[in-house]
Amino acid sequence: MNENRARWIWYPGDLELYHAMKQNFSRVERGFSWPAFWKSEGFRHRVAYKRDYQLEGETSFTVTVPPESSAFVRVNGEKRPVGQKIVCGPGAVSLTVHIGRIIGVPAAYIEGDVICSDEGWMVEDYCEPPVPAGSNRYFTEPDQQVDQWPMLEKAYEPVSVETVNGGALYTFETELTAALEVLPLGENTEPPLVYLGESRAEALDTARCYYFCRLDAQTGRCPRQALRYAYLPGVDPAAVRVRALHQYVDVPVRASFRSGDQELDRIFEVAAHTFSLCCDVFFLDGIKRDKWIWGGDAYQSLFVNRYLTGDREIEQRTLTALRGNDPVTTHINTIVDYSLLWILSMAEHYDTYGDRKYLDQMLPKMESLTELLLSQRDENGFLIGREKDWVFVDWADFDRDGPLCAEQMLLCAALGVMARFAPEDKAARYREIRDQLLQNIELRFWDEGRQAYIDSWTSGKRHVTRHANILAILFGLVSPERQRVLARSVLMDPAVPAITTPYFRFFELEALCRLGYLQEVLEGIKAYWGGMLKLGAVTFWEQYDPALPLEQQYAMYGDPFGKSLCHAWAASPIYLLARYFIGLRLDASAPEGYVLEPAEGFFRDLDCAFPVGDRVLKIRMRDGQVKTAVLE
Amino acid sequence: MNENRARWIWYPGDLELYHAMKQNFSRVERGFSWPAFWKSEGFRHRVAYKRDYQLEGETSFTVTVPPESSAFVRVNGEKRPVGQKIVCGPGAVSLTVHIGRIIGVPAAYIEGDVICSDEGWMVEDYCEPPVPAGSNRYFTEPDQQVDQWPMLEKAYEPVSVETVNGGALYTFETELTAALEVLPLGENTEPPLVYLGESRAEALDTARCYYFCRLDAQTGRCPRQALRYAYLPGVDPAAVRVRALHQYVDVPVRASFRSGDQELDRIFEVAAHTFSLCCDVFFLDGIKRDKWIWGGDAYQSLFVNRYLTGDREIEQRTLTALRGNDPVTTHINTIVDYSLLWILSMAEHYDTYGDRKYLDQMLPKMESLTELLLSQRDENGFLIGREKDWVFVDWADFDRDGPLCAEQMLLCAALGVMARFAPEDKAARYREIRDQLLQNIELRFWDEGRQAYIDSWTSGKRHVTRHANILAILFGLVSPERQRVLARSVLMDPAVPAITTPYFRFFELEALCRLGYLQEVLEGIKAYWGGMLKLGAVTFWEQYDPALPLEQQYAMYGDPFGKSLCHAWAASPIYLLARYFIGLRLDASAPEGYVLEPAEGFFRDLDCAFPVGDRVLKIRMRDGQVKTAVLE
Repeated sequence: MNENRARWIWYPGDLELYHAMKQNFSRVERGFSWPAFWKSEGFRHRVAYKRDYQLEGETSFTVTVPPESSAFVRVNGEKRPVGQKIVCGPGAVSLTVHIGRIIGVPAAYIEGDVICSDEGWMVEDYCEPPVPAGSNRYFTEPDQQVDQWPMLEKAYEPVSVETVNGGALYTFETELTAALEVLPLGENTEPPLVYLGESRAEALDTARCYYFCRLDAQTGRCPRQALRYAYLPGVDPAAVRVRALHQYVDVPVRASFRSGDQELDRIFEVAAHTFSLCCDVFFLDGIKRDKWIWGGDAYQSLFVNRYLTGDREIEQRTLTALRGNDPVTTHINTIVDYSLLWILSMAEHYDTYGDRKYLDQMLPKMESLTELLLSQRDENGFLIGREKDWVFVDWADFDRDGPLCAEQMLLCAALGVMARFAPEDKAARYREIRDQLLQNIELRFWDEGRQAYIDSWTSGKRHVTRHANILAILFGLVSPERQRVLARSVLMDPAVPAITTPYFRFFELEALCRLGYLQEVLEGIKAYWGGMLKLGAVTFWEQYDPALPLEQQYAMYGDPFGKSLCHAWAASPIYLLARYFIGLRLDASAPEGYVLEPAEGFFRDLDCAFPVGDRVLKIRMRDGQVKTAVLE
Repeated sequence: MNENRARWIWYPGDLELYHAMKQNFSRVERGFSWPAFWKSEGFRHRVAYKRDYQLEGETSFTVTVPPESSAFVRVNGEKRPVGQKIVCGPGAVSLTVHIGRIIGVPAAYIEGDVICSDEGWMVEDYCEPPVPAGSNRYFTEPDQQVDQWPMLEKAYEPVSVETVNGGALYTFETELTAALEVLPLGENTEPPLVYLGESRAEALDTARCYYFCRLDAQTGRCPRQALRYAYLPGVDPAAVRVRALHQYVDVPVRASFRSGDQELDRIFEVAAHTFSLCCDVFFLDGIKRDKWIWGGDAYQSLFVNRYLTGDREIEQRTLTALRGNDPVTTHINTIVDYSLLWILSMAEHYDTYGDRKYLDQMLPKMESLTELLLSQRDENGFLIGREKDWVFVDWADFDRDGPLCAEQMLLCAALGVMARFAPEDKAARYREIRDQLLQNIELRFWDEGRQAYIDSWTSGKRHVTRHANILAILFGLVSPERQRVLARSVLMDPAVPAITTPYFRFFELEALCRLGYLQEVLEGIKAYWGGMLKLGAVTFWEQYDPALPLEQQYAMYGDPFGKSLCHAWAASPIYLLARYFIGLRLDASAPEGYVLEPAEGFFRDLDCAFPVGDRVLKIRMRDGQVKTAVLE
């Protein structure tokens, strides 16, 4: 037996879609579930796995399928049951594993000396031509259930226990995604209620706490949930033992950062912990809320992830899950700009890892999504939303009359990606549309007097926000000279309304880095992220207003504890520090997979490490100079 | 409480798609499952039910959702849990029930005095505009599971018990879809194996029997399965009590037929039992095999069903399930002509029941399927199959070079339907394409010398089969004069190869009836169906060769017991007798919903009844004249 080669196989993308649905339906708020409000893509229910062998001798194999499957194996035209040893060979053997399954993905596992579910199986869905079957490193054992993503577990003891208002309050050293366990439970009494909080205030506010549940009477546990604090009203801490069983997907952090600046080191460390918690089966926005897979958040996660884990699989899982199936009819998360960011994500991913196979697999879906976008252009060639589409860009006070300039900038960038990767005849068309669009943007949205791009050309208000101007810089849609103009006339002009969301602040900070405003960015990082640390943050928050005291930091979206205190997009210092200060650019096309050009004057003595492909680049700076940069 | 109004609601079509998958995955053969080999359409996993009320006073309601749902209720913007009483009003109340569910349909049941899940709820899927929610008469109680279709049950005792080869053989009075029960089971021993047969020979042939299973150790039962005979090797009939628990969907037979001709009466009776067994959740082809929902079989079932049960819901369930979702990418059952027959089915259904609401609901899907078909035309406008498409028409020795004439005839007929029902601008286009296609058929496929339509115009062989010619008659695609010509030059010409399948024989018999060959048809019915009766048939078979003795009747498709002995298409005498001999045409546009014009010279004294809408038409003939025809 060569069990090491075999793994579960499925229609590529379908296990991702199944688990993405599980993820997007997993949000819980005050006793009810809140499924994400966009089209949820189904997985295929009926597939056939195919492979031909030329067998030198007799061999045997066994096919395992998940529970509640309808399945059989066709061996050279003869039908055989699954779950039993099948003997065949020598000679030509043509195999088809037929599976139908309603409740979950019709996956298969094939064990045998010669015939097994390793690389080489094709799968078809009775609609498209056969494609190579999908698999991953998490599902390799025949007794696994593909409906359950395997998690690692680590038990945490509380770091403090207090009695508050006649109940027990437990504090853990940091935020976790954990199943709280309380043992022993009293016999013949209802198990206690548990109130979990990202903040102490939240756990103790039993009336308004975001998450509460009753412990399971059998196990004494709650379902896995984000928590740092746990409050059990009416419970005597002396009578029970409480643990948090932290459950997490195996996506190891492979980076480290020691700059000598303790604040900066701590920012990196807390950002790394924050991001790591949000690396679940997919990139999540936050671990308490929304626990949904958002295309915009995922796009930003790509930048951090490549420097922190270098795990290409979580990127591919997320991008695959976001995109769903063809024919495409709706935008990612219903948001037109998230469809555009998804196309940009594919280029970001490819440039980092150079995985042409994945790009080729997804290229038809990049093209069909591009065609959907192009079908939504108005008479001037500007992209507009259809009814039910959400043209988001950012929570900002845009002049939303007619087409929005920022959306056109994103479309130009996406068309640039398609012009790079599509087959040449299509690429030429995308290039032509892009060039025309750039001209039309210039004609309609450029304000010569303001030296800026305006939101709307139809309203006559000529309102300027930062967004379109930032995107023009980020995606190189205007000349370097114009970029410098925009920096002065928009980014550095306090009269242009400030960006209010950390989401778009990430884009602004990167634009500033590109244009050399590193000192301003570093000060910004220390003020914003350092400010959270000063308030005791152990993970970085969805949003932070330095003007407010700690007790007013928890509210958001009109909810007293609505703010996520562990939010992926808050990990951006990892990217900004690595990419622009350490100057490490990950580039699969470079000879070693990276280019290192540290900015001068920021670090004296630095020891850091970042993943580059399968290896780790260890960088050692002394007296402001790189002493060693070694791939290990 | 007004529980009577409330029922389970779902996205229209989705419960049908879910149960159609269950049906199409339910085929079992010799110890393994055999899921149908076509694209299996998923149901939506995330929907929202919406309704606005103007409440005169305070009221309360409770929302129930199926197991493993992720759900909440939004009441005027406030989020509330499901499963608990919600109080609201007076005044304007806007309700949304949000549900995500992976393992099955995200249905909802809403109970309350004023607010309940009755007519009036809209549902959306985050892709298309909201549509009225679906429901049906089978799911009206809150404690029902929408994943299980409710069945009625009737226990049958065996009519004979024999000891054969040291085992017990049980015979039931007729074929059933039953869970066999054997009690008591011996303690501490493995429950016995059971071999089920549609024939005595099959049940006793333990090596080649189509269906066997081990009795469940807890219940002493097998899963529901087609059976007339049950053989239990090694079981002493004195030690056990055996019953067959016949489980069936509540689709009552509402017709009766007494003509005085005992053979004909028995043919009607056995056909009625055969068809009734095949009326499951959907029209099935056969109850032992395939147990799949085929578009061609379903089309023919429409003709029988309207005279036997008059149940429009099973027709709509079947047609809805067959068609699946938009965007449409594959043909029904992969078969191009089944897509065409589906469009024809919609017209048959509408003309019988006049349900404009259902037609309007399905019209977009009729149009999109038509567009798929039209996209597959060659340079002469002839419909051809794409790779993976199956151009079936019939199991016959067609000259399949280039476009097949019969397929073009079906396309003309389908375009005629679309020209009737589509909005006028589209209808005009369909009419134009149809007229051009008819001209091209005439130009390419009409053979003036043979006075017949040939299979292929490209091969030069000018091969004539009956099929295209029959379809030209059936769908009135040629003049009455030409129809009479075709009858002589094709239908009555023994040199043209005979139809070999009962499937297409149905079309041929109907064509003969249309052209007045009633005596020939009646003789054909008595020879073919009467022949099966003489061999002891209690249900009618998939196929019957009068030349073979009983013991050679069971094989088909190279399988010794491969033939289905209870097959829906074998029930066609019900239709032929009712429609052409009794002369009852069901027509929703007629004042009373029917037109009665009995053929002369076939019945002296006749008492029969057929469903017409919600009523039953009782017809009494004496001395060859209609005495009374009363709707009751």
